[in-house]
Amino acid sequence: MLVWDQLDQQAQQAILTRPAVSAGAGVQAAVEDIIDSVRQKGDQALLEMAKQFDNRQSDRLRVPEDEITQSEFQLSNELKSAIDQAYNNVRAFHELQLPVPKQLETQPGVVCELKYQAIDAVGIYVPGGSAPLPSSVLMQGVCAQLSGANTVVLATPVKGEESIHPAILYAAKKCGINIIIESGGAGVIAAMALGTESVPKVDKVFGPGNAYVTMAKQLLSQSVPGFAIDMPAGPSEVLVIADENANPAFAAADLLSQAEHGADSQVLLLSDSEAFITEVEAEIARQLAELSRAEIAKQAMNNSALVLVESIDKAFELSAEYGPEHLILQLRDAQSRVDLVKNAGSVFVGDYTPESAGDYASGTNHVLPTYGYSKTYSSLNLMDFFRTYTVQSITKQGLSDLSKAILPLAEAEGLDAHANAVAIRLNGGKQ
Amino acid sequence: MLVWDQLDQQAQQAILTRPAVSAGAGVQAAVEDIIDSVRQKGDQALLEMAKQFDNRQSDRLRVPEDEITQSEFQLSNELKSAIDQAYNNVRAFHELQLPVPKQLETQPGVVCELKYQAIDAVGIYVPGGSAPLPSSVLMQGVCAQLSGANTVVLATPVKGEESIHPAILYAAKKCGINIIIESGGAGVIAAMALGTESVPKVDKVFGPGNAYVTMAKQLLSQSVPGFAIDMPAGPSEVLVIADENANPAFAAADLLSQAEHGADSQVLLLSDSEAFITEVEAEIARQLAELSRAEIAKQAMNNSALVLVESIDKAFELSAEYGPEHLILQLRDAQSRVDLVKNAGSVFVGDYTPESAGDYASGTNHVLPTYGYSKTYSSLNLMDFFRTYTVQSITKQGLSDLSKAILPLAEAEGLDAHANAVAIRLNGGKQ
Repeated sequence: MLVWDQLDQQAQQAILTRPAVSAGAGVQAAVEDIIDSVRQKGDQALLEMAKQFDNRQSDRLRVPEDEITQSEFQLSNELKSAIDQAYNNVRAFHELQLPVPKQLETQPGVVCELKYQAIDAVGIYVPGGSAPLPSSVLMQGVCAQLSGANTVVLATPVKGEESIHPAILYAAKKCGINIIIESGGAGVIAAMALGTESVPKVDKVFGPGNAYVTMAKQLLSQSVPGFAIDMPAGPSEVLVIADENANPAFAAADLLSQAEHGADSQVLLLSDSEAFITEVEAEIARQLAELSRAEIAKQAMNNSALVLVESIDKAFELSAEYGPEHLILQLRDAQSRVDLVKNAGSVFVGDYTPESAGDYASGTNHVLPTYGYSKTYSSLNLMDFFRTYTVQSITKQGLSDLSKAILPLAEAEGLDAHANAVAIRLNGGKQ
Repeated sequence: MLVWDQLDQQAQQAILTRPAVSAGAGVQAAVEDIIDSVRQKGDQALLEMAKQFDNRQSDRLRVPEDEITQSEFQLSNELKSAIDQAYNNVRAFHELQLPVPKQLETQPGVVCELKYQAIDAVGIYVPGGSAPLPSSVLMQGVCAQLSGANTVVLATPVKGEESIHPAILYAAKKCGINIIIESGGAGVIAAMALGTESVPKVDKVFGPGNAYVTMAKQLLSQSVPGFAIDMPAGPSEVLVIADENANPAFAAADLLSQAEHGADSQVLLLSDSEAFITEVEAEIARQLAELSRAEIAKQAMNNSALVLVESIDKAFELSAEYGPEHLILQLRDAQSRVDLVKNAGSVFVGDYTPESAGDYASGTNHVLPTYGYSKTYSSLNLMDFFRTYTVQSITKQGLSDLSKAILPLAEAEGLDAHANAVAIRLNGGKQ
């Protein structure tokens, strides 16, 4: 346990500072090579990389549609229903977010509109690793489906002789995705940004990944005109604010559920009760022993901080400064304090709202800004799959009235031709 | 005049391809030095750079509030009214965009909310150069004002013995901005991202600038946790689609009003009428001669293309492929074709809707995605000054029902502690 008021400023700052995330010197050069290779050789480059990095012999890149259709028969009823239920909740909550065009006649004869257009072609990356991530498919796929994007490509790595887990395929099918690419890493990100024989070129790529994937997203978004990415990536984080009424077993479980994500996970507990923190420490030790990913969680817990603060108000202040990805409020008056929250990606209110509810099934999106970006970036939402643009239609009289604003401003800015484009219209074609 | 169908594929592609924009080898290293200098020396670094680059002797960085208050008395009534009128229209159109929180009980006992928070501190950069740009202040300042941001900083360079033009100060005053920094370039971008004695640290910086400003925005957004920028920058562009009913003098004026922005401006006209294009060419020659910025406009027109296409449908198809910043429709049936537009930042409909109306005063925002980013990026809108986040509150029974989705998914993903955070709550604190 750390006691905030007994720490010097440097130690306090250390708690709120994330470890520097650096891709490592070799990553950029390696990714640049991969991008060049995909640009030059297309599919062939992806197949060669699959051999080299994933020990894969197959020369198949795209999953046949009947494998997608048949996926549900390879799932237990329990898992299939779980995906159905999560899909329904996530879909319902994101349907709320469908944008509504707006129109205003700002002055007589001057009509301005705000309109929305789905991004035409999107790519969804689902990392591989130790387990399939159907929830990651749902969170991104539902948005793509609701937006009405014309092209949705899902890419995920496959190792050796394995095939994509049916839970991934079934989640994709629920979201209407029929282009599934068995390929991972920086290569397939480049393929989606540039297009290859098998991989359609997309306008925007979503989804987390390792340092190579992140670097590829960054480099391609800077070099391919019009190509965009979702948000900056960083290690996952939770901050729990709890008072003496909270259940220490629940708080410990929440801290550990974040810690098991990876050794670089950031885990913070702020409480005004010393007794509570002591109990949480004991609970962590007890629960940790039972976890299959105990080693990973233990490493993350080594970087965690359980901090005694003078008051819950102080905890809210520190949370706003830190800007956590996930913020859990286990407080007697949690509900009444929600509006005081600043800078959090997703907020979990009350004793029965663990982070895993939002990770999987409550309906909110689990793709959230980390690394302090919750101060400026939004949680993934339907608008990330749309773009906003404007339209204006002006009558001759409207333009005449508006010219009283345009002409002096154009003159002040020294832009004659801007003024002339108005004057010539009001003078019937004469300059 | 170019005839689309007579061009080979390479020549066609060349018309729709933007020139590569490269910052130049020295820019990144120079900007890294500037950022380091601001990090180490704060205000002092800005003052040294003002001396070195802008020949400025003053050691004042912040405009005193009474200069802002008094600015309106230094303006002509005409210019003051123009700013007032533009402000009112832009404000009215952006007020429409104020976000409304949403809430849904996705299943009994599971309440999800989508909420909005203004970005706390924002910076607005207004470039200097040959003329003051009060319109640039309005377009960004109105958004900051409507969002309710706690801190709004405006920065703009000042050369030698000059002071900031009263039109800039008055536009800032209308937008409630009282922190105005007399400093420009990469230095002040770094100051806003990092904070100095005189310049408050902000969370997000908006506004265009030269290659150094753009590079500073890019580097800082990648290295300062939580710091964000508005959108990728690029040369300004217009695409005009016109049929034989359009007025060639109007079309020529619109092309030139884009061309005078800078020698790198991109200017395109697509029409299905050869006679019309010929008339536009003559009009351009005639109008160009009268412009004060004729030299700049002439250079931009050298890179422009006036293209004869087989049909207006074809013109819409090419426009969607190009993705122009500004799209002007001078067509008999312009209004009925608006919904066919894809990938444009702002659309100007009909003979009496020149681009300069939107640049200054119709109400729409003039900060728009260029360089093909209109396929994926939004026109600047009020949401760029907000962030979206989610909140969930679940009852014990709600969590119990939801566990049927959470537990199988957590198991499939191999995340025990995620499952445990639910199970322990349903088992009254026992793992």
